[in-house]
Amino acid sequence: MTALVLGHKNPDTDSIVSAISAANLYRERGIDAVAAAQGAPAPETAFVLKQFGLEAPEVVTSVAGKDVYLVDYSDLAQAPADFSGCKLLGIVDHHKLGDVTSDCPLECWIQPVGCCNTILKLMYDYFGVKVPEKIAGAMLCAILSDTVLFKSPTCTDADRKAAAELAEIAGVKDVEALGMEMFKAKSNLNASPRDLIFRDFKDFDMSGKKVGIGQLELISLAMVTPELKAELKAELARVKAEGRHTAILVLTDIMKEGSELLVVSDAEDTVRKALNADANSWMAGVMSRKKQVVPPLQLAFKA
Amino acid sequence: MTALVLGHKNPDTDSIVSAISAANLYRERGIDAVAAAQGAPAPETAFVLKQFGLEAPEVVTSVAGKDVYLVDYSDLAQAPADFSGCKLLGIVDHHKLGDVTSDCPLECWIQPVGCCNTILKLMYDYFGVKVPEKIAGAMLCAILSDTVLFKSPTCTDADRKAAAELAEIAGVKDVEALGMEMFKAKSNLNASPRDLIFRDFKDFDMSGKKVGIGQLELISLAMVTPELKAELKAELARVKAEGRHTAILVLTDIMKEGSELLVVSDAEDTVRKALNADANSWMAGVMSRKKQVVPPLQLAFKA
Repeated sequence: MTALVLGHKNPDTDSIVSAISAANLYRERGIDAVAAAQGAPAPETAFVLKQFGLEAPEVVTSVAGKDVYLVDYSDLAQAPADFSGCKLLGIVDHHKLGDVTSDCPLECWIQPVGCCNTILKLMYDYFGVKVPEKIAGAMLCAILSDTVLFKSPTCTDADRKAAAELAEIAGVKDVEALGMEMFKAKSNLNASPRDLIFRDFKDFDMSGKKVGIGQLELISLAMVTPELKAELKAELARVKAEGRHTAILVLTDIMKEGSELLVVSDAEDTVRKALNADANSWMAGVMSRKKQVVPPLQLAFKA
Repeated sequence: MTALVLGHKNPDTDSIVSAISAANLYRERGIDAVAAAQGAPAPETAFVLKQFGLEAPEVVTSVAGKDVYLVDYSDLAQAPADFSGCKLLGIVDHHKLGDVTSDCPLECWIQPVGCCNTILKLMYDYFGVKVPEKIAGAMLCAILSDTVLFKSPTCTDADRKAAAELAEIAGVKDVEALGMEMFKAKSNLNASPRDLIFRDFKDFDMSGKKVGIGQLELISLAMVTPELKAELKAELARVKAEGRHTAILVLTDIMKEGSELLVVSDAEDTVRKALNADANSWMAGVMSRKKQVVPPLQLAFKA
């Protein structure tokens, strides 16, 4: 049976490129596998795929009866609804360990680095498999995206090393310029407030409370007009009303290196305090949802 | 803070030696870590530690507030009761993925091989760290134990390769002879029926049912007298009555390469059928709890 290599809901660039690069590596190892995604590419990912001549993975939202490898997550909330009916064969991830379990022994490559594709580069090297040129370019972009041009506190030496080696393989001379082009594509605000919130959105179970957190990384927050901000806030209230304790949108200014917090919650003060937001909802230095938003919230909700 | 490297409840040789070999590797990588165990060594493990001049790890049964690396498991049922209060930093394991989760990104080295120490040997090689001679000998024994002298269906080429390399490092010329000596030490039945059942015992959550499975690997089942078998069955009924749906003891004859099933359960027929036990409760070819007992039971209880 062909195994599916599947990224998370609301796929970002790392999730989609990980599925492509992991599926290629599994095939090179003799495992029948194909890349899949739980949604269509967002603008940033579309730019990356086009830039390197890659096709978007097949969209898959049901996995019952299938063999599955997960990339870039290990949370049931980010998996298809019928996940318990699949056979989990492996995980490649760089997040906290989630609540996914397996019925059989499996392979997990989980490392505390800035990007899932950094781990995949290490795996290519471990198995002695050459990264194809096009895939190397996309993997480089995934690292630039996840580490926000190496500026995120999640960025490690392993990410910088993998990026340099992938740039070499892909023949990318000006990594910085490629990254800026990609973030310009990402800063596309031509979408409904709902689509903007869900473009990179994840639900977390925090001590029994469902907390949804979206993030928009922009070249400049000046792009978000007061009107758009009001629309986003109104839509966030609807997102919260759909069974969540808290709905958050983190608006990240990648050049100013900080984020503005939009929040609708049953415990708004707890959230603002946990995230150290100032009177203008500005969180100086906050670039990473995974490292600077999720852990303090989890702690706050545990208390 | 010194991190604890902690094996599972009712520690077996692989669990205790993994804690020792992993703690040494973490220290060589610059991570402050110490081996720990949730109990004293069983006879087989005591033989191995003595053989190679190693000390038993400190016994630790509480981890709240501690930094923790797990070796040889990822199930909450096999962790200390206050596990949710610790900070999980990593896992090395070769079982199915359990229900342990983490609050922060971590490192997981999980592979579908026969022994946790096989993965640790791969990690030593990956990080370019030399395995100390004594630890190599104990790691070799862990592989011989978990793969039942390479006869278990869980045994992979990676296990055979790691064992050969570790034997070379430890200066062990006759691997087979060492293995037989170790299994003779393991076949020690001088203990209470309760201690024998819990010597290598694991609880599993199978579709909401608590299923406890012990395994005794013996050079010959002829060692188990009818009187002892009756005592084991009676004790198993008490173990079942302590809040379990099913209590199982798998008596494995490592030379005959099969196992006898002792079971007390609310669904005994389901268990016998799932495990293909014959009229004499004999399960031909069954050597591995992980691969030949747990998965069919999980399937049967799912249905």
